[in-house]
Amino acid sequence: MIANAFSGLLVPALTPFDSNLDPDADALLRHCRWLLEQGVDGLAVFGTTSEANSLGVEERIALLEHLLEGGIPPDKLMPGTGLCALPDTIRLTRHAVAHGCRGVLMLPPFYYKAVSDEGLFASYAEIIERIGETALRVYLYHIPPVAQVGVSLALIGRLLAAYPSTIAGLKDSSGDWNNTRAVLEEYPQLATFCGSEVFLLDTLKNGGAGSITATGNINPVQIRALYSSWQQDGAAALQAQITRVRKAYEIFATIPALKAVAADFYAAPSWRIVRPPLRSLGADDQQAVLQSLTEAGFAMGK
Amino acid sequence: MIANAFSGLLVPALTPFDSNLDPDADALLRHCRWLLEQGVDGLAVFGTTSEANSLGVEERIALLEHLLEGGIPPDKLMPGTGLCALPDTIRLTRHAVAHGCRGVLMLPPFYYKAVSDEGLFASYAEIIERIGETALRVYLYHIPPVAQVGVSLALIGRLLAAYPSTIAGLKDSSGDWNNTRAVLEEYPQLATFCGSEVFLLDTLKNGGAGSITATGNINPVQIRALYSSWQQDGAAALQAQITRVRKAYEIFATIPALKAVAADFYAAPSWRIVRPPLRSLGADDQQAVLQSLTEAGFAMGK
Repeated sequence: MIANAFSGLLVPALTPFDSNLDPDADALLRHCRWLLEQGVDGLAVFGTTSEANSLGVEERIALLEHLLEGGIPPDKLMPGTGLCALPDTIRLTRHAVAHGCRGVLMLPPFYYKAVSDEGLFASYAEIIERIGETALRVYLYHIPPVAQVGVSLALIGRLLAAYPSTIAGLKDSSGDWNNTRAVLEEYPQLATFCGSEVFLLDTLKNGGAGSITATGNINPVQIRALYSSWQQDGAAALQAQITRVRKAYEIFATIPALKAVAADFYAAPSWRIVRPPLRSLGADDQQAVLQSLTEAGFAMGK
Repeated sequence: MIANAFSGLLVPALTPFDSNLDPDADALLRHCRWLLEQGVDGLAVFGTTSEANSLGVEERIALLEHLLEGGIPPDKLMPGTGLCALPDTIRLTRHAVAHGCRGVLMLPPFYYKAVSDEGLFASYAEIIERIGETALRVYLYHIPPVAQVGVSLALIGRLLAAYPSTIAGLKDSSGDWNNTRAVLEEYPQLATFCGSEVFLLDTLKNGGAGSITATGNINPVQIRALYSSWQQDGAAALQAQITRVRKAYEIFATIPALKAVAADFYAAPSWRIVRPPLRSLGADDQQAVLQSLTEAGFAMGK
């Protein structure tokens, strides 16, 4: 592992919006503070769960600065910076590095499909070389169900060979344990995170670094506890309970469902708002999510 | 049809880059002037073929202004303005309208997948209402093989019902003639363009407006001639020849292949450059494309 690599539970913090659909920077700051108080190891702000791909470049920059000014330590931050266009990705990544963020989570360019590993390598290489900062730490973001364009095993190997002190880790949101296991086996030097906490125990048993997961927004304590205690008795039971919680909400649209839970927790109905093309859950569906979680023995912050 | 709707051949102009991978605004202007001299009816700059999704927001704004300052009439311009994030799409669209562009070609937000028509409607509605300009003319961009997120028949109907004087047309790049035919049948009030000139004669026979096609970059004269003469004898033979030209280059990666042909035509090797994640054709492949076109009886500008 690269020195100072992230490990443990990182949370792609939800991005709250106001009734005008503008980001609510103060509510985001409060949520990030709450997550750190619960013991999470890092904040993967501007991830898929954060609706980051519905945020403009300027909005991401302003929000990151608001978090830093609000006292969120840059050592806890792994902002998502990968966009379709090189100049946008370079701008966000340079900004994150300049502000001391310990790493960035980087999607490959995801508009053009059926692109070659050679083309994706060239993209990451251009970004890394143009930024030219030894402090840059890139976590590759593999999420083929959404981005469609993925980070193959061969591409990881090529990037590690070329940039061994920059390519720090990978988030595998393929939902395919066989892929995560292959990454763990082939590239033990990489800090590999499962994209769903359902695979946390398996990931840790196979030398992984932890999980970067949407559910961390509502269930940070249990997931963090499994990370701390995975070699102890009871780990399998804790994993089973954590998995039950995930199953209880992911039967709904996951981002709106997590926001509905947060809206209840913060007693702030505006937390339910999502930006189009996503749709908010209505009050009835919000109650259904909360009920489903209650039946799974869970309530946020309790 | 909406008054002043586009029709005929529109070209998603290729975007040339210099050796630093920056857009070459003067070379783009020259290419746009050449296309207009060949008789094309409009320039759908910043389309998929333009590598627009590899351009930053600022780059698109600067390039559009360069074209306008260089004398390209706004009445000929249909810039692509649809991005993943509402504020970016709104900014580009507002800029295009403010500069008098006759229309914009708008992708749906394409990062989040399996989104509902309701969510996509909300996205287009937010954009249209926030811009709030009666001069705005939106051409919907349906390209599921690349964007994955498409514009369904039901969504078209809903948008037309809500914004009958704003939703002006649609580009169908599904590659599925049955879909194009269904759009033509259900929504004759829409200016519908096929995304490949292979379907131009069929599109026109069914009441369509024309084609917005990548091949227009190299073969504008023949395609424009078919648009003018589709009801005359010889139209089927001309369609067959046009289709032969397309087949001759699309066996290669289409954007790099078109740029290789342009590089030969303009005697400017830098025209071959593409931005990652695409890869340029090498000199051997460039020769192979030119040879393939020669065998199809075609050479750009001859």
